[in-house]
Amino acid sequence: IVSKLPQTAVNIFSVMSALANEHKAINLSQGFPDYPCDPQLIKLVNKAMLAGHNQYAPMAGAVELRERIAEKADKLYNAAYNPDTEITVTAGGTEAIFTAITAVVNPNDEVIIFEPAYDCYAPAVKLAGGIVKSLQLHEPDYRIDWAMVRKLTTNKTRLIILNSPHNPTATILNEQDIKELTSLVKNTDIIILSDEVYEHLVFDGHKHLSMAAFRELKERSFVVASFGKLFHTTGWKIGYCMAPSQLMNEFKKVHQYNVFSVNTPMQIAAAEYLKDENHYLGLADFFQQKRDYFREALAATKFDLLPCSGSYFQSVTYRNVTDEKDSDFAVRLVKEFGVASIPISAFYSRAGNESVLRFCFAKKQETLDKAVERLLNL
Amino acid sequence: IVSKLPQTAVNIFSVMSALANEHKAINLSQGFPDYPCDPQLIKLVNKAMLAGHNQYAPMAGAVELRERIAEKADKLYNAAYNPDTEITVTAGGTEAIFTAITAVVNPNDEVIIFEPAYDCYAPAVKLAGGIVKSLQLHEPDYRIDWAMVRKLTTNKTRLIILNSPHNPTATILNEQDIKELTSLVKNTDIIILSDEVYEHLVFDGHKHLSMAAFRELKERSFVVASFGKLFHTTGWKIGYCMAPSQLMNEFKKVHQYNVFSVNTPMQIAAAEYLKDENHYLGLADFFQQKRDYFREALAATKFDLLPCSGSYFQSVTYRNVTDEKDSDFAVRLVKEFGVASIPISAFYSRAGNESVLRFCFAKKQETLDKAVERLLNL
Ligand SMILES: CSCCC(=O)C(=O)O
Ligand SMILES: CSCCC(=O)C(=O)O
Repeated sequence: IVSKLPQTAVNIFSVMSALANEHKAINLSQGFPDYPCDPQLIKLVNKAMLAGHNQYAPMAGAVELRERIAEKADKLYNAAYNPDTEITVTAGGTEAIFTAITAVVNPNDEVIIFEPAYDCYAPAVKLAGGIVKSLQLHEPDYRIDWAMVRKLTTNKTRLIILNSPHNPTATILNEQDIKELTSLVKNTDIIILSDEVYEHLVFDGHKHLSMAAFRELKERSFVVASFGKLFHTTGWKIGYCMAPSQLMNEFKKVHQYNVFSVNTPMQIAAAEYLKDENHYLGLADFFQQKRDYFREALAATKFDLLPCSGSYFQSVTYRNVTDEKDSDFAVRLVKEFGVASIPISAFYSRAGNESVLRFCFAKKQETLDKAVERLLNL
Repeated sequence: IVSKLPQTAVNIFSVMSALANEHKAINLSQGFPDYPCDPQLIKLVNKAMLAGHNQYAPMAGAVELRERIAEKADKLYNAAYNPDTEITVTAGGTEAIFTAITAVVNPNDEVIIFEPAYDCYAPAVKLAGGIVKSLQLHEPDYRIDWAMVRKLTTNKTRLIILNSPHNPTATILNEQDIKELTSLVKNTDIIILSDEVYEHLVFDGHKHLSMAAFRELKERSFVVASFGKLFHTTGWKIGYCMAPSQLMNEFKKVHQYNVFSVNTPMQIAAAEYLKDENHYLGLADFFQQKRDYFREALAATKFDLLPCSGSYFQSVTYRNVTDEKDSDFAVRLVKEFGVASIPISAFYSRAGNESVLRFCFAKKQETLDKAVERLLNL
């Protein structure tokens, strides 16, 4: 059998988590919390199941959840989305991204991706027959050079995939990026896929600049979000996508044949939980405290810290420690020092010389303490 | 925006369920139970959540669940599947079907589909760039004419999609079908996608003939199953796919970028629940009782009953009642008689003159009583 994705192996998150388990290492690789979610959420799921919400939800998602999502978008971004025609609940942010790409990318369409890039974008584009045009960004700032983006843009450019707050680099788009992007897409048919699953994790008083917040961008954007990140329940696999009805219409055509609908009791619980806006407004502070704590502790190691403006990832360079390739060093760090991270080269399509590791700090304080203690042995 | 699925509208299940709700009709259209699932299952989900199983499951599914699935396949079909390399837990049967098709169908590959066909097969093939070759089957028997299948088969045939027990016709494959199929695919590279989500719902002492049970078929088959059907929890969205490792390897490449992983607490609960084989062995009797009850009651109406050997659907012809098209009649049946069904034409790509409606009997006895009472007014 000839593979449609010959370059694809088991992804880096699965590999590193498995390696971490095997060596009983502290797992700061795959992004997920190691502390419990709010017990109230569990109660709400239980209540929904006991009330009999165990059959198919509507294809686009439970009505009450879509209404809460629309309210949140309005409150946070002053963005009007019609819950009936412009919002779909998905099996996590990943399904939303896959479905959006599958819905609009045709064979030979070009898709612009910024690297380092979350690993699901390019394979989805390839499966749709599209062509990935990637622009590589580099530490320490990973800024987008918009002149370069212009050069990459052709009349075949169908989609630009953005991700802010950014995984793995922890950068965020600023007003200047928004301006450049707006001018770039003006008078084109380019669609934007905006992966905003870390929307609530923006630090130092910055504001998350959602595509939903800018009229000229909103009208051509799929905006993807995640309750896994918001509720500390990555295993519940609920996310959503918002887009103007014309785009959402195409999205739904794929979604209904891809997964049809999403876990009902979790949707009902999420809808109830979202009624209290404190359940999302406080998240940035919660994670900023973790970031600050982790950075301060890491500062005592031989690593050099890269900036972290958003997401729950902290990256470091390690040129003071070794000149190994990051993928080799990451494996050795598990085996010899008992700490799992993600080598940033996994997010690039072409090998570079990045010498960067990503650590997830969505962890209990004691987990972060123990990890840093081990890293001090380097 | 030019649609990739121009013919696709909101699917028939969503349309009829919405119409049923709007008119407060008895909903025998979309296939889902209206009675509660086993309270023990809910307890197990709650226990899993409280125990902290709320983060990403492994990409292929929780280890313990894959082990139970392998045991079940061994017990029921004497089929050996390696839980590590040949089983993946999916976001329902639908995701398994979509992912399998996406994984192996290349542009211009031909895919043989038997109609009436569940509505997600053809769009998934089209999105992959494949070409649907459909063979139309007809009431009352809907038997497959294998000589016709042979004629449809070319050296571009990549995939044959089978579905037994069959939705919507309630037929099952027999030994003769298996023989014909085996001889048809022999010495070819044809892959089989076998949608067996109703595997446990086979009546009158017949045995479900799974592709997993026949060596020459198993080695080239994706076998898809569903816990939604097995546990009466269609809204939990857990299913799975089994295939030889070479095929499963390609399947996983798509799955990991499509949904990555599936609801964790529900997987943990399912694994625990499956330890008791009575939780699946008794299902045929449970549904046969419902089928017999419903058929006996329906016999008093003007409808003519079609055979029902498996699944939880009973179809009828209505030529004694009206010569309306089934889609029109189904709508009128909701509006004037308060009963929702599925017009079988929704499962055909070309309009015919089928005059068949499908009713779901996975319902409480009182629901079936009330529906038939209304149908007696015809
Ligand atoms: C889908 S597993 C990966 C989780 C994640 O977002 C990350 O670690 O980057
Ligand atoms: C995915 S909704 C449809 C449920 C079902 O299998 C059916 O009614 O045929």
